[in-house]
Formats: sequence, C-alpha cells, structure tokens
Amino acid sequence: MVGFGNLGRALARILLQDGNPLQRRKIETSVVAIVDEKGGVIDERGLRLERVLEVAEKEGSVASLGQPGLSAVEVIRSLEADVVLELTPTNIRTGEPGLTHIKEAMNSGKHVVTSNKGPLVAAFRELTELAQRRGVQFRYSATVGGAIPVLSLAKRLCLGDRILAIRGVLNGTTNYILTRMEREGLPQDIVLREAQELGIAEKDPTLDLEGIDTACKLVILANSTLGLNATLSDVNITGISRITPEALKLAKEAGYTVRLVGSASSKGLSVRPSLVPLDHPLAVSGTLNAVCFELEYAREITISGFGAGPRETSSALLSDLLEIAQNL
Amino acid sequence: MVGFGNLGRALARILLQDGNPLQRRKIETSVVAIVDEKGGVIDERGLRLERVLEVAEKEGSVASLGQPGLSAVEVIRSLEADVVLELTPTNIRTGEPGLTHIKEAMNSGKHVVTSNKGPLVAAFRELTELAQRRGVQFRYSATVGGAIPVLSLAKRLCLGDRILAIRGVLNGTTNYILTRMEREGLPQDIVLREAQELGIAEKDPTLDLEGIDTACKLVILANSTLGLNATLSDVNITGISRITPEALKLAKEAGYTVRLVGSASSKGLSVRPSLVPLDHPLAVSGTLNAVCFELEYAREITISGFGAGPRETSSALLSDLLEIAQNL
Repeated sequence: MVGFGNLGRALARILLQDGNPLQRRKIETSVVAIVDEKGGVIDERGLRLERVLEVAEKEGSVASLGQPGLSAVEVIRSLEADVVLELTPTNIRTGEPGLTHIKEAMNSGKHVVTSNKGPLVAAFRELTELAQRRGVQFRYSATVGGAIPVLSLAKRLCLGDRILAIRGVLNGTTNYILTRMEREGLPQDIVLREAQELGIAEKDPTLDLEGIDTACKLVILANSTLGLNATLSDVNITGISRITPEALKLAKEAGYTVRLVGSASSKGLSVRPSLVPLDHPLAVSGTLNAVCFELEYAREITISGFGAGPRETSSALLSDLLEIAQNL
Repeated sequence: MVGFGNLGRALARILLQDGNPLQRRKIETSVVAIVDEKGGVIDERGLRLERVLEVAEKEGSVASLGQPGLSAVEVIRSLEADVVLELTPTNIRTGEPGLTHIKEAMNSGKHVVTSNKGPLVAAFRELTELAQRRGVQFRYSATVGGAIPVLSLAKRLCLGDRILAIRGVLNGTTNYILTRMEREGLPQDIVLREAQELGIAEKDPTLDLEGIDTACKLVILANSTLGLNATLSDVNITGISRITPEALKLAKEAGYTVRLVGSASSKGLSVRPSLVPLDHPLAVSGTLNAVCFELEYAREITISGFGAGPRETSSALLSDLLEIAQNL
C-alpha cells in the first residue's frame, strides 16, 4: 500500500474484520509494505495491521514503526508483491508521485489498484498501454464515483448496447452545496462554510467548486468507456460560483433543479451547472453522486450512491482486488 | 429462439442491423431455428431473418414459413445450437412451457438465455443446479429490470461488499399509475384505463396491480443475489388497489411518494406500497424501474432505467449472449 491516509486506513480496518470480502472468498491476503510520505514499514511475512493502524492514527505516519525516509519507488521496485495499491493524494497537474508509483509497479510486473485520479488524468493511455504490455491488471474503480461501480457498469453496458453519451453528478461537495442552497434559500458562502465545518468541503474547496474534480472524473470515465484519450484541457469547465439561491428557486418552480453535470459524448466533454428535471434519476440530493448513461437500445440507465467516504470507497478497492484475484 | 413475440422480434431486428453488438465484437451468429406456439422454422445454415420477421408480423407466427405444429421440445433436443433463447410468455404457476424448454436445452448441453420469469420463480435452484451439472451457462438478466443490468450489478456488489437488503420498484405499470395519480390527483381506475389505452397496462392488469409481477422479479433477484431459495409463496404481497389520490397527496405534503416496493433481506420478502422520500433515488417516476441495494460498506447504491420494452430488453439478451460467448 502506497499512501496510508483515510482510505488506506479504512481498507486496513476492513481487512482486519472477520468475514471481510477477501476472507469470504478464501483469498489469503497479507499487506507486506505500507509506505507514506514520511517513510514506510515492511514485513514480507505480512504486517500486523492493528499495530500499524494504531501508530498511523497517533502519529499521522507509519514511519516510526519502520524506516523513516523509505522511498515508495524503492519498495515498489524491489519488494515481492502481487498488487500495488496506489492511494496517494491526487495531483491533477503532474499526476505525481502516483504516476511514477504506478509505472514502477507495472514495470516490475505488479498489478495495480488505485484511487488516485491524477495519474489517469495525466496519462490515461500511457498507463493502460503499459499495463497491457507488461501483462498486468490495472483497476481504478475508486477514482470515479467512489463506492459506485460506475466503470464496471459501463463495461457491462458496452457489451450488449452502445453508450451514446454520459452525464454525471460526480462531486458530492458541490452537490451538497447546491442541495442546501435550494432547500434553505441560503447564499453559497454560508452553505460552504457549513459544509467545511461538517467536513464535507475541504479547507480549499477550489477544485470542487470550480468543477475541476468533476472534470477529472469525467476524463477517466470518458476515456475508459468511450475509448477517448482526453485530458483535462479537453474539458470545457464552468464551476458553480455563479449559481444563486434565486436561480435555484426559479428552476424549482419550473420543475428543475440545478446540478453540476459532467457530460461526455462524441461531441466533446464539458462540466457545467445544468438544469435537471426534478424527477430525473440524475437529480440526486446531498452528497450523493449519480451517472446517467444514454444508450442505443436501453435508452437511459442511471446509477447513484455515495461518491466519497473512506469506508464506502474501500468497497471499490476490494472489488478491484477480487477481480484481479479471480483473473489470476 | 423459442417464442417469437415482441421481444424476440426486436432482437431479430437488432441482429439484422449493421454494427450491432455481436458484429462489433466479430461474433458470427446465426439463428438456426425459431419456434412459436403454432410451429417453427429451421435452417441449419442460418435463417433469413428479414423474411421471418415479415411473416411473423403479418401472420402472428412463423409456422407458415416452415413446419406448422413443430414442437419446441423436439427442436431444442435435436438441433445443433450453442444457445437456446427461451422467450415464451411467463406462466407464474407452473413455469411452463418455459421450464421444460430450459431443462431440455440444458440436458442437451446448450447454454440458455431467458426473459421468462416463470421457470425461475417455479424452480430457481433446480435450474441453476442443472446448469452447473451440465456445464452450461444460464443467464436471465432480462427477467429482472428489463434493460437494467440489475443482476450483473449485484454480482459486482457482492464481490467487494455485502448486500444487506434489496428494495426495488420493479413494475413499470404500477409505477406509471401511481405517478399519474399523484400528479393529476386522479382515481386509480381512470389512470388505469388511460394506461391501457397507451399500451402501458395490459388488458388484464391483475398481475401488475396486485404486486405479483413485482414479487416474481423479487424472488429471482433475492435468490440470485442473497443465495435464497424462495418461491412466490414466500413473499408477503400487497398490491396498490387501496392507494387513493388522497393518500398520495398526504404523502407528498410530508415529502414522500408512494411506490410499490419489493423488499428482500434476511428478514424475509415482501411487496407492498411504501413511502419513499421524494429525493431518494428509488422515487423514480413513470414507467421507470429502480433497485436500491443496501450494503455493508457502500451504504446504498441505486440503479434505475426502463424495466420493460422489447428494444430496451433486447440489450439485456445481447449482454447475456456476449457474456456467454466471452466465457466460451
């Protein structure tokens, strides 16, 4: 495991539980190394996760348990492991350090599961091609829609149907803000402050409010399901800053809500506040995410759920791990 | 193909289209036999579907093109084919003639794709076990949620998570009626007549209105995802006949809508009109269907789409066919 923040720890906690999904399928797993920004801890016979979690919670790093200053790249390259879980924070400009981690993992013949949008936004095709060349599996369900198996659903839909367009409410923070503004008639800055106090919005909410986070997820979704090779610069992006409670009220009176929608089709990629009919499945409330596929035969299929949250998103990592195990 | 009603014909029309999903994956398909109630037509080199469709549309049967009185069982047993598509109408009491067709197909080593709820409701475990024993694949996506890949999604969710409960709006006719009653304040009998005129409700809408159709789908969904072996008699069923426009109005004032919800969990199976918060993804409108999975980690995932319609449901048949082809 490279990166051991909220998500990595939530996954570790699940792995410690009796009857977890890996155990249920009699797949013996051991975590042989955990590396974070400050260092790492290694045990080729399998780490004692209780102890590691304890230290990580207390000190914000696992370094003191093992080797402070240990380099993730070195560990990925030299250690024997089947899978590298790349769980470092997203850097949308360079994709680093995740991009290097993933390449190192693939080049040393390891399968990769990641929750990190950065590398996929920066170098989608490079990574998917590298995985193919190296004969390793590369899974990134957790990058789009958190716990919602959006990419797996898309794969199934592509089988017997054809995806014509995708529209997604892909950012829980902005959706929460729009929902509260609509319900309470409050201005954006007040709702934002409330969301920050609740831990729903980050201290610096720019990436969310300006639609960048939505655009990143859209790029990954479009590339992996429509076969594009888009990057962030291909997305026409408008955030929610100009949306007022008055606009939401007017929309509601006409039977609509306003949602920050990422759209992808052969016509291009965009992120913008959009009118969604109140009774349309895409009109989800609060921190929910939703993705609507427009299809040649099935017309429309929409999936929704919680697009964030460490425990929720762990289920995506576990599904990816289990799919890799099944294919081995 | 056994059964050649609206669904079978819609599928045949798609198979005739250039660039259909099978063709896109370079899977050569030929339909070697089509049998309906009145007889069948066989051509081991592949039927000319244009001609078959023409006759079926005009005469309501393909019999005059081939052999009137030809028995489906005989064809299934003796003809060489990889897959039998069982598309005869649902008989919820005995499951026949679909049940016999499916058993014959499996016993003669053929994979089965079906849209017929009857055999699965009557003999779920018998059929899944027979398929396993005979080493054939058995797919029935089209039986639950029409075009919505509910069963395939459930499979993925079971991988990295645990399904605790399922709630589904599984009948488009009742959902249309409830939606119209709510919106227009009209009594049920008037809305029903309108739905019948539009072809949304059948002449005899009993199975829909009384919740039997929902219960059938619930049984299949629960058996295949929760590992139960339930039949229709295990479901506690209440239909929508007692729902008045007044009840819908009161619910709406409190922020709810009333939907006919099928629920399954370890506590049992039930179908009954239920209050659903207006902003919950399960509160779909019109003829849409939706299924909400309650999960250990991901909390809630909901999928919605069109649960009926021959063209829509064809996409489920095609996905099933392609999954079988991929596994071969």
